[in-house]
Amino acid sequence: MTDIPGDIEQLIELMARLPGLGPRSARRAVLVLLKKRGALMAPLAQAMAQVALSARDCTTCGNIGAGDTCAICADPRRATGELCVVEDVADLWAMERGGAFKGRYHVLGGTLSPLDAVGPDTLRIPRLLARVAEEGISEVILALNATVDGQTTAHYIADVLGASGVAITSLAQGVPIGGELDYLDDGTIGAALKARKRF
Amino acid sequence: MTDIPGDIEQLIELMARLPGLGPRSARRAVLVLLKKRGALMAPLAQAMAQVALSARDCTTCGNIGAGDTCAICADPRRATGELCVVEDVADLWAMERGGAFKGRYHVLGGTLSPLDAVGPDTLRIPRLLARVAEEGISEVILALNATVDGQTTAHYIADVLGASGVAITSLAQGVPIGGELDYLDDGTIGAALKARKRF
Ligand SMILES: [Zn+2]
Ligand SMILES: [Zn+2]
Repeated sequence: MTDIPGDIEQLIELMARLPGLGPRSARRAVLVLLKKRGALMAPLAQAMAQVALSARDCTTCGNIGAGDTCAICADPRRATGELCVVEDVADLWAMERGGAFKGRYHVLGGTLSPLDAVGPDTLRIPRLLARVAEEGISEVILALNATVDGQTTAHYIADVLGASGVAITSLAQGVPIGGELDYLDDGTIGAALKARKRF
Repeated sequence: MTDIPGDIEQLIELMARLPGLGPRSARRAVLVLLKKRGALMAPLAQAMAQVALSARDCTTCGNIGAGDTCAICADPRRATGELCVVEDVADLWAMERGGAFKGRYHVLGGTLSPLDAVGPDTLRIPRLLARVAEEGISEVILALNATVDGQTTAHYIADVLGASGVAITSLAQGVPIGGELDYLDDGTIGAALKARKRF
């Protein structure tokens, strides 16, 4: 583009690297920022710089927090003996929004993927084994995504934890609340049928 | 959400105010930023702060540039006597991407909208009249959007410019290059039929 100032063009390119924003929507977003320079752009730049500086991966669980230990690991009320294994911080946030889980988490940081050279060590699995041995864990809940990669990883973890004697569970599969059968894939319907309960 | 640190939560809220990003995609974008703190988040914060500080509305045409006069208004080669009136900086960028227009622009900053109290003064229309009188303009090209508001505003501008004797034109309407009739609305097809040319 000929006459867009260089620093605006660079901003558009960086914005276009965010998920959900292509080059076109990045331009639109930057134009909104340009119109709201004081009310939105400056505070957003400030918030981003602040988080970039302060965010830390929790050395215990892999959650993102403001220090070396995240708020959940630091909260003694969450030492319930239940450890919920998730793929990503996004999944931890989703579990927390539900508010149903009172224990602690272990964030793997992905799924096993031999082709991409993602092995157990990359995924904080050794750390998981250590925590199970050290933190008085009675149950490990495998809350991995219901994808092939997620389930492969879940099976691997169940295998390596087998000798520890800890209870290993996983989230129930079925029709989501409010889910319309017509919009569900066949696998979900099949799994829900298999796990059917007396009405 | 219980255990997202406050500054990350604030960042998500600010990101969700960008067009194209709802609360869910803002969370996803922030998670990507958190994972790429050094490679993406810090440079993006920096670029945003820089642009927030340096961007200026061109006092002549309303384009956004790095100083009081934008690069297009400052470029003597663009004093062609043609002035292209657009609604927004996004439209100016779109025209510039095409590269077909060699003259200068006048960015209205919106369309007339009496219900929202957007009158001619809010829209840099007085400034347009002054420029036509002062800059030796021979043709004003109305490149407003083909919407009701855009066309109402175009008619208003054509009216107030009527006395100046300047040529007033507008972009041709028709089937876009590569456009499939099946995907075009009836109005476009009708306008293209009306303006049909010998093959
Ligand atoms: Zn933690
Ligand atoms: Zn200008």
